[in-house]
Amino acid sequence: MTQLQVLICNDDGINSEGIYALAMEISKIAEVTVIAPATQQSAVGHAITVNYPLRAVPFQKNNCFFGYAVDGTPADCVKLGVKFLVKQKPDLVISGINHGSNTAINIIYSGTVSAATEGTILGIPSIAVSLTSYTVLDFSYAAKFTSRLALLVAERGLPKGTLLNVNVPAAPEDQIKGVVVTKQGISVWEDRFDARRDPANREYYWLTGAMNVLDTEDDSDQIAIKNNYVSVTPVKYDLTDKELLVKMKEWNVEGLK
Amino acid sequence: MTQLQVLICNDDGINSEGIYALAMEISKIAEVTVIAPATQQSAVGHAITVNYPLRAVPFQKNNCFFGYAVDGTPADCVKLGVKFLVKQKPDLVISGINHGSNTAINIIYSGTVSAATEGTILGIPSIAVSLTSYTVLDFSYAAKFTSRLALLVAERGLPKGTLLNVNVPAAPEDQIKGVVVTKQGISVWEDRFDARRDPANREYYWLTGAMNVLDTEDDSDQIAIKNNYVSVTPVKYDLTDKELLVKMKEWNVEGLK
Repeated sequence: MTQLQVLICNDDGINSEGIYALAMEISKIAEVTVIAPATQQSAVGHAITVNYPLRAVPFQKNNCFFGYAVDGTPADCVKLGVKFLVKQKPDLVISGINHGSNTAINIIYSGTVSAATEGTILGIPSIAVSLTSYTVLDFSYAAKFTSRLALLVAERGLPKGTLLNVNVPAAPEDQIKGVVVTKQGISVWEDRFDARRDPANREYYWLTGAMNVLDTEDDSDQIAIKNNYVSVTPVKYDLTDKELLVKMKEWNVEGLK
Repeated sequence: MTQLQVLICNDDGINSEGIYALAMEISKIAEVTVIAPATQQSAVGHAITVNYPLRAVPFQKNNCFFGYAVDGTPADCVKLGVKFLVKQKPDLVISGINHGSNTAINIIYSGTVSAATEGTILGIPSIAVSLTSYTVLDFSYAAKFTSRLALLVAERGLPKGTLLNVNVPAAPEDQIKGVVVTKQGISVWEDRFDARRDPANREYYWLTGAMNVLDTEDDSDQIAIKNNYVSVTPVKYDLTDKELLVKMKEWNVEGLK
């Protein structure tokens, strides 16, 4: 059997702790190439770089894994990696481990998820992984869980166009209650802008806010995490609102021509 | 009756021809505020700015419309606009008119669509509009069509979480055959990277490629445009793959814990 080929990416940057923990663990079951942003790229969504060129600098860490640091977004890294930098098409793309949860509406803003989305667009089964804390630094359980899930995905495959979005509670392993397959929650951000003055007295605005938890159902990503379960959400970018598509037959849009 | 309040955004930047044509036309039916990126932001996807502050510079053009140029992404503009800059919550967000189509997989990469997505997230009925050419500069029919659609949406509303993604063929008005409600196509990009050398002989990579048209059905956005119909797609960011969600019950993911 040939060895599993895994491309690892993230949005926190190639020097972050989360990608290191992930790459170390996945190296035990696969040949790993890490292709990740040179710098922090949080909340870039599915941005790609078209108006500027990209550079890729060879990267290695502790002789444990090697790869490339790319001066672009997570989606850029996966595109450039798969289409140019790696010799063999990867069997899996894994993105993470992100610092902070990617549940509900955050899936849309997430650079971590977008790397996995790009893998899926390129026809490769892909997984995005996040640890639901900005402070806890112990990625070991999340990495081990992802390794087990990666083997399951390698065995079973994923439908064309679908990725798995994983959120792991930032709790000690013995307090994690289990694993649930979830749907994307409906919680949203209550955005607020801090208006401040710079040293030259010019106004600027800084985005802040808090998640407004609107979810109540146990099988939503948001509530699974709250209850200390690992959440695994199958995510598909089939964006058509099929219900409205049918209803709009009554709108007589033809009359707008 | 109070006047319709419309926030207009785009991703080509506040000085582009497309946003000017749109704002001029919508001004005939509504009070318009233009809040758009100071510079070109194509393919930024749903990026938002969290690690840096934003600035907003008052902007006006030919005494016809006023607003703000923001040094951020399309989604930043809509967030900052709705949450801070405008006095009254807009009745509609309209994003465009984009130079170039936003169909099929491009919806995910599109800054134009992301501005409308952000409007939708904030609970405002939203429309994204693109003219399917990078060279044709006559936005007048696309602007007129959007104005008529805006009035229809203002009257009928849109379901929570759904926006309308409009693509207008770059053809003379008398060659446009009609308007169809469509689904997101399945066409994808065949990506390629040009490897080049800079003056210091360092390698860099530039994304290029061509759309691989996989769509054949008349009710897909891609084919509607090809057949010279205006395409109106209801787009919803409900990303759960419900089919796989059910099938994964057999995966025994609980066993991965």
